[in-house]
Amino acid sequence: MKIKWGILSTARIARTQFIPAIDRAENAEVVAIASRNNKVHNIARELNIPRAYESYEALLNDPDIDAVYIPLPNHLHKEWAISAIQKGKHVLSEKPATLTAEEATEIKEALISSPVKYMEGFMYQFHPQHERVKEIIASGEIGTVKQFNSSFSFHLGDRENSIKMQKEYGGGSLYDVGCYPIHAARMILGSEPIELQAFSLNDQDSGVDLTTSTFMKFAGNVIAKTESSIDMANRDEYEIIGTKGIVKVPHAFRPDKVGGVGTVIVEKDNEIRKEKFSGDIYRLEVEHFSSAILNDGTVSYTIDDTINNMKVMDACWDSIKTGRSVNIK
Amino acid sequence: MKIKWGILSTARIARTQFIPAIDRAENAEVVAIASRNNKVHNIARELNIPRAYESYEALLNDPDIDAVYIPLPNHLHKEWAISAIQKGKHVLSEKPATLTAEEATEIKEALISSPVKYMEGFMYQFHPQHERVKEIIASGEIGTVKQFNSSFSFHLGDRENSIKMQKEYGGGSLYDVGCYPIHAARMILGSEPIELQAFSLNDQDSGVDLTTSTFMKFAGNVIAKTESSIDMANRDEYEIIGTKGIVKVPHAFRPDKVGGVGTVIVEKDNEIRKEKFSGDIYRLEVEHFSSAILNDGTVSYTIDDTINNMKVMDACWDSIKTGRSVNIK
Repeated sequence: MKIKWGILSTARIARTQFIPAIDRAENAEVVAIASRNNKVHNIARELNIPRAYESYEALLNDPDIDAVYIPLPNHLHKEWAISAIQKGKHVLSEKPATLTAEEATEIKEALISSPVKYMEGFMYQFHPQHERVKEIIASGEIGTVKQFNSSFSFHLGDRENSIKMQKEYGGGSLYDVGCYPIHAARMILGSEPIELQAFSLNDQDSGVDLTTSTFMKFAGNVIAKTESSIDMANRDEYEIIGTKGIVKVPHAFRPDKVGGVGTVIVEKDNEIRKEKFSGDIYRLEVEHFSSAILNDGTVSYTIDDTINNMKVMDACWDSIKTGRSVNIK
Repeated sequence: MKIKWGILSTARIARTQFIPAIDRAENAEVVAIASRNNKVHNIARELNIPRAYESYEALLNDPDIDAVYIPLPNHLHKEWAISAIQKGKHVLSEKPATLTAEEATEIKEALISSPVKYMEGFMYQFHPQHERVKEIIASGEIGTVKQFNSSFSFHLGDRENSIKMQKEYGGGSLYDVGCYPIHAARMILGSEPIELQAFSLNDQDSGVDLTTSTFMKFAGNVIAKTESSIDMANRDEYEIIGTKGIVKVPHAFRPDKVGGVGTVIVEKDNEIRKEKFSGDIYRLEVEHFSSAILNDGTVSYTIDDTINNMKVMDACWDSIKTGRSVNIK
């Protein structure tokens, strides 16, 4: 049996990544796409999607649809996630789930009285390279873990026409890519940060953050540093530094850009070992979520995880504003 | 003609690195070594050094000595540099030159009324890989420079017997290795930081910083981040991130540990180019300083540069203490 998906908007990521991934998935199919623009009919035809709706409401009212994918601009994620939940549709939302932890808590409240599943779409976490990293750490090969570093950056060319430069739409680097290194720090260290300092360089005209860096303390004096930028060359990497060695993952978030092949590098003294792992991250994400629906299973990344990730991002904004260290509760 | 060197102390770095480098240098020779311990005679014999003194004063009184190398514990650098200058000896001091910018200014004052040359020994800067990095940046290949990142770390095993764990001796990671990434940020960006935030994790018993991170703003919204640690696996690297590409130098500070071969890696999109350069850093340092004496030339790293580097380190301690951003004047 296949989960029937509806897509809320014709965003580029839906057209180029998510819809093709549903086509590749074994337990999913796309049945409808919605847009507020009547070009949706052409797009549906091009992508072989049977139904096209000229409003998100119309799609949510289609009784044949099991699950929706939300790739809308960031500031609309909460509203349409809650609408979909209320219509009994399972929801896979693009990151960031919301703009604040408080908004994510509103989604949690909507879920309490609903049987549907909800997941924030950090597709990268489904790549097998991360399980291997956790295994290497657990084996003790790199000694005691002392620090996690991660950067996700790209250089935004066409700024004038980008919603990433619109502050009111949840623009800027932290919302766009900064949520990934924060997610990865929490996932790899397996705990939540206690204290955080963050710094941004803002675009003068739009006020969005072009580059944001964080310095986080975890229990046991473990440090995590993250960085996001929409103003620098491509990086999507993390590394874990132990007392005896280092594990590096150079294609942590977008292994799809290098053919799905992730590389895990272990450096000890001057010896370097590379291990390669293949994974189709968007397809794995679709299959994971569809399977959780089909088998009434738990999603691997829950709304509580989302709330915790948003709490860290809230703390970033707080620290950036005050110029001080912020405790995270 | 060869510069006649005297060595102030039998420190490990003198025995294993600096004295052999003088032996390899074309314009230098070691004529004396001093220690407050009478084992100095055995050490002199082992290292084929003609004269051995049981006090630093005695060595400084030897009229045949042109220049001295100071590898004493950090808190003694200033005192013995000034004594040597007053005795008319040229001074190459191990880093950090002093413990504060104010102390470095005392050395500058001693130099005003003296014809001798003084240099803080950041040996790594003499490796040709750094000139190549500057060329690549100047060529525009990586676009506009946005950020400089650098880490220098190692895991200190025998803490009980290490002066690196003695606070009053200038112990801890920032004095020991943190001065290098700060130096490298200033050297590569070719300017001085304006503002800085720093964070440390301190050892509970000794109070020394095990790990110190900095976040620095340079003119034009260029960022530099540095890190030092005596509590993590080996790293001695820097990278420069531009709008179009990245330059990485994985053996920035200790290429001698990998046979003197430095690697400059340029990453653009998914293309990676590696260039290799050989350099004998300690020998190049000895030859540079000896040549400046022989030809009455200028040393490439002046006391003013040293004062500027120490100002950044002063700002680190200040920010660590207050938990706030610090302006650097």
